[in-house]
Amino acid sequence: MPLLVVGSVALDSVETPDQQRDRVLGGSAVYFSYAASYFTSVRLVGAVGEDWPEEHTRLLAGRKIDTAGLKVMPGEKTFYWKGKYLDDMNERETLEIQLNAYQQYQPELSDDFRRCPFLFLANGSPSLQLHVLDQMIGPRLVVADTMDLWIREEQDDLKKLLERIDGLVLNDSEAKLLTETNNLVLAGQRVLELGPRFVVIKKGEHGAMFFSKHEIYVLPAFPTQDVVDPTGAGDSFAGGMMGYLAEQGNFEPKTLKEAMAFGILVASFTVEDFSLDRLEQITRDDIELRLNAYRKMLQF
Amino acid sequence: MPLLVVGSVALDSVETPDQQRDRVLGGSAVYFSYAASYFTSVRLVGAVGEDWPEEHTRLLAGRKIDTAGLKVMPGEKTFYWKGKYLDDMNERETLEIQLNAYQQYQPELSDDFRRCPFLFLANGSPSLQLHVLDQMIGPRLVVADTMDLWIREEQDDLKKLLERIDGLVLNDSEAKLLTETNNLVLAGQRVLELGPRFVVIKKGEHGAMFFSKHEIYVLPAFPTQDVVDPTGAGDSFAGGMMGYLAEQGNFEPKTLKEAMAFGILVASFTVEDFSLDRLEQITRDDIELRLNAYRKMLQF
Repeated sequence: MPLLVVGSVALDSVETPDQQRDRVLGGSAVYFSYAASYFTSVRLVGAVGEDWPEEHTRLLAGRKIDTAGLKVMPGEKTFYWKGKYLDDMNERETLEIQLNAYQQYQPELSDDFRRCPFLFLANGSPSLQLHVLDQMIGPRLVVADTMDLWIREEQDDLKKLLERIDGLVLNDSEAKLLTETNNLVLAGQRVLELGPRFVVIKKGEHGAMFFSKHEIYVLPAFPTQDVVDPTGAGDSFAGGMMGYLAEQGNFEPKTLKEAMAFGILVASFTVEDFSLDRLEQITRDDIELRLNAYRKMLQF
Repeated sequence: MPLLVVGSVALDSVETPDQQRDRVLGGSAVYFSYAASYFTSVRLVGAVGEDWPEEHTRLLAGRKIDTAGLKVMPGEKTFYWKGKYLDDMNERETLEIQLNAYQQYQPELSDDFRRCPFLFLANGSPSLQLHVLDQMIGPRLVVADTMDLWIREEQDDLKKLLERIDGLVLNDSEAKLLTETNNLVLAGQRVLELGPRFVVIKKGEHGAMFFSKHEIYVLPAFPTQDVVDPTGAGDSFAGGMMGYLAEQGNFEPKTLKEAMAFGILVASFTVEDFSLDRLEQITRDDIELRLNAYRKMLQF
């Protein structure tokens, strides 16, 4: 089944301890879409500026990604993020953010897009996420991401959103911030009380935790020594997860767990190079091969 | 098969965000022995002072733990550690250490103990660990723990030790310190180059990683919201792991992986209360029950 994603489309400048890249393709909806496109057809909604390189659109459209919802904002530049990873690549500093095309952007969905059965609200303000959700007609599954900025500054809107979505994906520090506890198991359970039927806490190099009323589990990350650039890992995780759910067309507990595993595996490829460079090299078969190794790793 | 452990026997004062306990039973060899005693008979070697409460010896001897190697040092007090956990219980501060009985202690093993087939060198200086190892007669498996202090201050002796042991168990920050990298997969591989045939990196609430020449894997911690006191989790992990290996009498890859899982599960009980309080309540059956849940958690 088709999967709609609304989120940021960006140009990123990234510095790691060893290397750097300037103005490469990035953004939450970009990583998400590409990751999901191994599994299902994706409809991407976002905004770019007049400086947007057309080759990036071609790259996405070359996959099963419908880019009709990618709006060029007149007189604007593309969202720009500049960040630097510390020696411990789990830590990063944002050096610069230019919202640019996203400053005034309010996504308006086409009638076709409104009827998409699977929706992912990638990183964006809760008010923007609610604005998108209001336009949807009978979605089967709605999952959102959020971040510390919105937890701190738009918590009222975020809580309205949480009452209306099926699943929330957020990282460990955000979960602790939102629920005011340092115990992640407790944090996940407290997020459930805010509305979603399931919650996924991303733990970076340590994997991800799943929470529903009946189930709590942790899956570790796939161990790789080739961590070149962690940017987009979380969005790739969400893309792999949602892509698989949309492909399967259901969100039974069994399917959700498989989806978690696929999310972890796609993310393990993303971090092996900058931007989409590693994902561009792999096929669904490479993901399946790594899945076999991952299953074996967790069996004893 | 019997398992020998040499390490600290201590009285701990522990402060957590919610509670505190004064001078409770602790020490690396104590947590290790108790955890291992679910699986095999244990021979404990360590030193205490004249203030040592005899009831602690009785508690250990009530399990399959031979306390004949527990030496009372005349005129000394028992090793004392005082620590405080921060709001994030993964972080702790040491407020006070009194080596006391361990200041001058040089373990001398009985002839019987020297022939023990399985040996664990719990936390102690590498020179003390080497002194013990020199006394052993034909051990089948020797595994050691170490810590940041020895990596910083006795690295030469530590490297001599690493050339002579089968396995090393250490935590993530120690592995990074020893190998000068922030990538744990790389860190594990670099420790292997220093001599051990296998390395286990403990990641606290995130589980543990295993490295050998042919295999790398990660197993997550068992998720629990009842984290009361993390003290002794790492030593309980090692005790569960080594206890199971000694029980099975081999260290094939399959057995090692099962041993990792048992280590993780015993540690998940330890943190649910102070000192040995939670372990005292459980039986091998409780561990097996949690093992079933853990296996199921990792299946998809």
